[in-house]
Amino acid sequence: MEGNTTALTVLTQTGADRAALPLLWWLGPITAIVALIFAIHFYKQMMQKPEGNDKMKFIAQAVREGAMAYLQRQYKVVGIVFAILFVIFLVLSFFKLQNPIVPFAFLTGGLFSGLCGFFGMKTATNASARAAFAASNSLNAGLQVALRAGAVMGLVVVGFALLDITLWFLLLYFGFPMIFPNNFISVTANPLPQITAIMLSFGMGASTQALFARVGGGIYTKAADVGADLVGKVEANIPEDDPRNPATIADNVGDNVGDVAGMGADLYESYAGSILATSALGVAAVTLAGSGLIPGKSPLETGLIYITAPIVLAALGIVLSILAVYLVKTRDDADQSQLIASLSRGLNLSSLGIAVLSLPLLYILGLPNFLAVWICVLAGLVVGLVIGKSTEYYTSHAFKPTRDIAEQADTSSATALIEGLAVGMESGGIPVAAVVTGIMVSYYVAGGVDNLLMGLFGVGIAAVGMLSTLGFTLATDAYGPIADNAGGNAEMSGLDRSVRQRTDELDAVGNTTAAIGKGFAIGSAALTSMALLAAYLEEIRLVLSELRHVEELLVRGEMIPVMKMTMDNFMDFYNVSLLNPAVLAGLFTGAATAFFFSAMTMRAVGRAATGMVEEVRRQFREIEGILEGTGRPDYARCVAISTAAAQREMIAPAMVAIIVPVVIGIVFGIAGVLGLLAGTLITGLSLAITMSNAGGAWDNAKKYIEVGKFGGKGSPAHKAAVIGDTVGDPFKDTAGPSLNILIKLMTMVSVVFAGLIVAFGNGQGIIYMLFH
Amino acid sequence: MEGNTTALTVLTQTGADRAALPLLWWLGPITAIVALIFAIHFYKQMMQKPEGNDKMKFIAQAVREGAMAYLQRQYKVVGIVFAILFVIFLVLSFFKLQNPIVPFAFLTGGLFSGLCGFFGMKTATNASARAAFAASNSLNAGLQVALRAGAVMGLVVVGFALLDITLWFLLLYFGFPMIFPNNFISVTANPLPQITAIMLSFGMGASTQALFARVGGGIYTKAADVGADLVGKVEANIPEDDPRNPATIADNVGDNVGDVAGMGADLYESYAGSILATSALGVAAVTLAGSGLIPGKSPLETGLIYITAPIVLAALGIVLSILAVYLVKTRDDADQSQLIASLSRGLNLSSLGIAVLSLPLLYILGLPNFLAVWICVLAGLVVGLVIGKSTEYYTSHAFKPTRDIAEQADTSSATALIEGLAVGMESGGIPVAAVVTGIMVSYYVAGGVDNLLMGLFGVGIAAVGMLSTLGFTLATDAYGPIADNAGGNAEMSGLDRSVRQRTDELDAVGNTTAAIGKGFAIGSAALTSMALLAAYLEEIRLVLSELRHVEELLVRGEMIPVMKMTMDNFMDFYNVSLLNPAVLAGLFTGAATAFFFSAMTMRAVGRAATGMVEEVRRQFREIEGILEGTGRPDYARCVAISTAAAQREMIAPAMVAIIVPVVIGIVFGIAGVLGLLAGTLITGLSLAITMSNAGGAWDNAKKYIEVGKFGGKGSPAHKAAVIGDTVGDPFKDTAGPSLNILIKLMTMVSVVFAGLIVAFGNGQGIIYMLFH
Repeated sequence: MEGNTTALTVLTQTGADRAALPLLWWLGPITAIVALIFAIHFYKQMMQKPEGNDKMKFIAQAVREGAMAYLQRQYKVVGIVFAILFVIFLVLSFFKLQNPIVPFAFLTGGLFSGLCGFFGMKTATNASARAAFAASNSLNAGLQVALRAGAVMGLVVVGFALLDITLWFLLLYFGFPMIFPNNFISVTANPLPQITAIMLSFGMGASTQALFARVGGGIYTKAADVGADLVGKVEANIPEDDPRNPATIADNVGDNVGDVAGMGADLYESYAGSILATSALGVAAVTLAGSGLIPGKSPLETGLIYITAPIVLAALGIVLSILAVYLVKTRDDADQSQLIASLSRGLNLSSLGIAVLSLPLLYILGLPNFLAVWICVLAGLVVGLVIGKSTEYYTSHAFKPTRDIAEQADTSSATALIEGLAVGMESGGIPVAAVVTGIMVSYYVAGGVDNLLMGLFGVGIAAVGMLSTLGFTLATDAYGPIADNAGGNAEMSGLDRSVRQRTDELDAVGNTTAAIGKGFAIGSAALTSMALLAAYLEEIRLVLSELRHVEELLVRGEMIPVMKMTMDNFMDFYNVSLLNPAVLAGLFTGAATAFFFSAMTMRAVGRAATGMVEEVRRQFREIEGILEGTGRPDYARCVAISTAAAQREMIAPAMVAIIVPVVIGIVFGIAGVLGLLAGTLITGLSLAITMSNAGGAWDNAKKYIEVGKFGGKGSPAHKAAVIGDTVGDPFKDTAGPSLNILIKLMTMVSVVFAGLIVAFGNGQGIIYMLFH
Repeated sequence: MEGNTTALTVLTQTGADRAALPLLWWLGPITAIVALIFAIHFYKQMMQKPEGNDKMKFIAQAVREGAMAYLQRQYKVVGIVFAILFVIFLVLSFFKLQNPIVPFAFLTGGLFSGLCGFFGMKTATNASARAAFAASNSLNAGLQVALRAGAVMGLVVVGFALLDITLWFLLLYFGFPMIFPNNFISVTANPLPQITAIMLSFGMGASTQALFARVGGGIYTKAADVGADLVGKVEANIPEDDPRNPATIADNVGDNVGDVAGMGADLYESYAGSILATSALGVAAVTLAGSGLIPGKSPLETGLIYITAPIVLAALGIVLSILAVYLVKTRDDADQSQLIASLSRGLNLSSLGIAVLSLPLLYILGLPNFLAVWICVLAGLVVGLVIGKSTEYYTSHAFKPTRDIAEQADTSSATALIEGLAVGMESGGIPVAAVVTGIMVSYYVAGGVDNLLMGLFGVGIAAVGMLSTLGFTLATDAYGPIADNAGGNAEMSGLDRSVRQRTDELDAVGNTTAAIGKGFAIGSAALTSMALLAAYLEEIRLVLSELRHVEELLVRGEMIPVMKMTMDNFMDFYNVSLLNPAVLAGLFTGAATAFFFSAMTMRAVGRAATGMVEEVRRQFREIEGILEGTGRPDYARCVAISTAAAQREMIAPAMVAIIVPVVIGIVFGIAGVLGLLAGTLITGLSLAITMSNAGGAWDNAKKYIEVGKFGGKGSPAHKAAVIGDTVGDPFKDTAGPSLNILIKLMTMVSVVFAGLIVAFGNGQGIIYMLFH
């Protein structure tokens, strides 16, 4: 740390007059690097384990190749999209509708998120055979391999995100004024509002990457899964993961693509977005509204302390996440609930650590309202906890809702479907109540009554608090597909039944953590979007004043001070009241967009699955001896089909997410955009929870029947439940999680295109201009 | 009309100084009475037709008795609820939290809506056998009987609604100042804002009645339908409407209960609500904001003209609806599309009549902005048309979406379900776009930029325009179940195949009109709620000033002028900006409530159907010779089960609709309530369309297969489609339509409990008070 402080001193001296950063700020880059070091450590540790016999290696290699082939293809498409958006941003910044730094920051955000996906997938696909082999020794050994491989993903995500944010901040705060004096970032005034507003649009890179990872991954995994099941299980009557099924490798690849890379990119975006939005809101709260200023400190110095708050929380979370990984151990005769308990121990202790340690850290940081901010952190943690528990209640067959579905399956598939849809629609109640309570508590405790922005800063802190232990929660998420693949490897390579039993146990726990992870992803997306939504208005205010500034310069040929606009008169100017028809138009459109987008992703799975079904049928028909185990199925072909379908099918939904906010902005103005974002957020939250939980409940109702209830496997109840599970697949793994991305991406698109929207009639939209 | 004008003169002279009503206003009560006279005429005409042979009479009698038994039971429950609410309103008015007239007006609203249900059901259940008998002569004869019976329902609804509104207005405007001078309604000042605000809460009676009719009816009809199908069609392999099935009478009763009485009450509420809200907004626009005043006329006189505008449109619509009934004729060899064309002729010509004739009428009325208001009428008509066409596209098997579902059914039931859900979720796009466009056009054309309230008045006018031809559109809706029942009667009484073929043709057209009717009901609910939402704020403003008035009187013991609060400073006071966390809390809760309520109604159907399944199985098991046609099934028992289940199951959803707005109001204040209403409205609209259209599309995909595609009846594709249809039943006939009621009822509850909410911290809610 000594060396870093020296570097800081050098920068401030050679650059412009910059106040020093609070010492605690440096925890950010330091822990980010620590996270990456531990990720490498866990990766090496895992790679040293033996991968088992030749057949295991062969299968693992096939999955690995499939996954990498998918990633290559995806990154090619992503590359094209990034290139197009990069050029658009360049053009926008040429016309002064965007800060010229944004196009480049956009690239790094996308790059780091993409790297996370790459490392996460590489680790997961290397770990599955090793986990299977380790499980042949003991349950704990298997658990350790799978969890630590998952931790690589978790730590890479938090490490890269925090590193990206802190490095760019250093560059913008110290570097740019030195390299380009009097350019881009104003030197003399308080530069923090401008810097944080620019950094907001970094999220756009992560958002775009997440869109492709989550939506594409979701389509891939379910096309392969549904295709493999419909022909393999139903028509050919061969078990799951049977090596004779040509789609089985694609199915295993899909688990990695959807649940490792997709989930990681989704949460990378939330994690980065929440920190960036919270920083922007904190700075705006103290510099614009003036309240929250620390006695004896300038607005700049106060702003730096507020910026540091989310960084400190993230840093603390990283340390605790690493410790939590070491806390997870299990006995070899552990049953299901003991396994869950050992994972929960890690989660609970890291959350408890945040709750206890954040208070002194925030105090040391010198936040004047440290107690209030600490309560916001607690609120975020509690919201995460409540959503997790609620998800468990609605989707685990230990509880009534899922058992009710199984009971209805005993009557008919139609009643099981009706019951499952009802369970899904009901299950939004508690999470939404938790999110609402979390928003209200953090807003008011942080002081939202006197200072709107400080209240929103509190909401942002709640989001950061909820996501602070992401390093560990993501590890338990990524652990699931690794255990699942380990089971697939054990099955395909014909290992002893006891091994498969152990991996099944690990996998079953993975289903629970995956369901909780999905709830967590949705909840954090909601809180993050709330913060982004508020930060969006900040961005608009800034763009507006910059635009005027430029206009004035052009007209008068001289420099005038940028207009002073308070949040209050700004709110008058952009009437975002519910009775403004532009807001209502936005709200209605936002709700419809959430449904429309879900329809697109659902149907994409349907189309992609149809292609897979046809290919598997063709192979069964044309490859001799395939069902007898003598003919070799063409795995690669199925992998290629899923890969191509995923890339093809995600273009249309992606366009919707990017184009709708721009069009609404141009037609209805800022008020319309804000309505749109709020409409998508509120409807998307309920709809996503409905779909995720209905899917999870159907899945587990099927599993409940499979353990022997209502006639067990092969009974009419089981057949009915399988239909429910198949309908639930795109619900819970494609459409539901994709909505998180839609919500966040639309907000990010609005942020980066804010300049364009403002340029049309000062943000009031064509409609407004027409009638004036 | 001469006599009426004299009566007016007498009233004004003996009562207070009241300006005369515009002559055109009197068209309201006159056409209302004309509608009722024609309803009686059509009823008598229908009753004179022969009811067929003894078996037909017997079956018709059984359905009639079942329907009346249901109504009796429902009215008993409704009676209890009305008594409780009546007492609550009395208590509220005792504490000056409610105008003392409201409790009584609440009763008449409920009474008239209830009478509509009674007459409509009585007519429909008397018409079915007669329609079947007439169809044995010719297709046209059957059509005439069914349509004119439907017209009774249509005309009774518009007649009673308009009569209720105009009579109360006369009483409040002329009668009360005379009977109770200086009481309840102020005499000297312009009383219109107060009168229209009081009249808004009339809708509460209609809303409560509609809740029970629509939700209870929806549960009844689907419990009977699913129960009859699951045991009869699937297990016992007997055809639909087979007299051996004990649930078949209940099923036929259900058609009447759900599609006649339920739909009627739903649209009664929209019709009355749109007129009441538009009147309130018109008056507020000219008296508060001042713009729109007619030169040379006082605010009172101008207000009367604005109040008359929606009345004139409704009156014109009634006349055109009656004419349209006479326009519908068909040849006996008419095919499906010719039948639809003959019904469309009536609809198109009545809409065209409104479009052409409303312009001169609005001009004669003396509206200064008659051209703008006329464009709002057109906007409403076009929105209704677009929603109807879009619904037809998504749910008729003449088009791609439904055929795609049938194609997917050929793969598996799961893919058919996924496709159907996708079709439903996609189908909201066009209707929502239409509603948004309609709102924007009418708001801005009416002058919303300069006068917010005038813009909202325009939105209200659009709703009234859309609903103006309700007399006829409701006739085509109610015609459906009558034709359906006629088919059932023909089947059960063993009439010639040709008769059943004719009634099937009539019924198939009924399916299309029913689907269009549902879209229409949802669209009008959205526009009406928009207007009610705005009118709600008006109500709050008024309550607030009254409360202050009373407070001042109590404290000072003297009279002071009520505070002058403009809409603008009022909006500042109640910050309904999207960034107010109370608004966001409301929005989130509103979205979740729409999903939660749907879950409740779906599950209610599931539970009620299970009871029915058990009863039918029991009868098949215990009644000897029942399947051979020698044992007599116990129809009444099934009717009683559906009736009891419907009443029992609707209590919980009803409580949600009534309690949630009150709780949110007390906790989060006015801003929270407005957020809640907007959230339920925007999410409910998309969700309701999704469910209605998915259900309709599944139903027709099944029918498409039944006409011989993909293997026809009994094929695997057909079995898969039947599962889709069964899942779709509660979607389209219970949960979807119930959302219309939820949206409107929650708004009405907010209106009538406004006083209570305002009493808590001036409408800012407990949360706000806690942090101040």
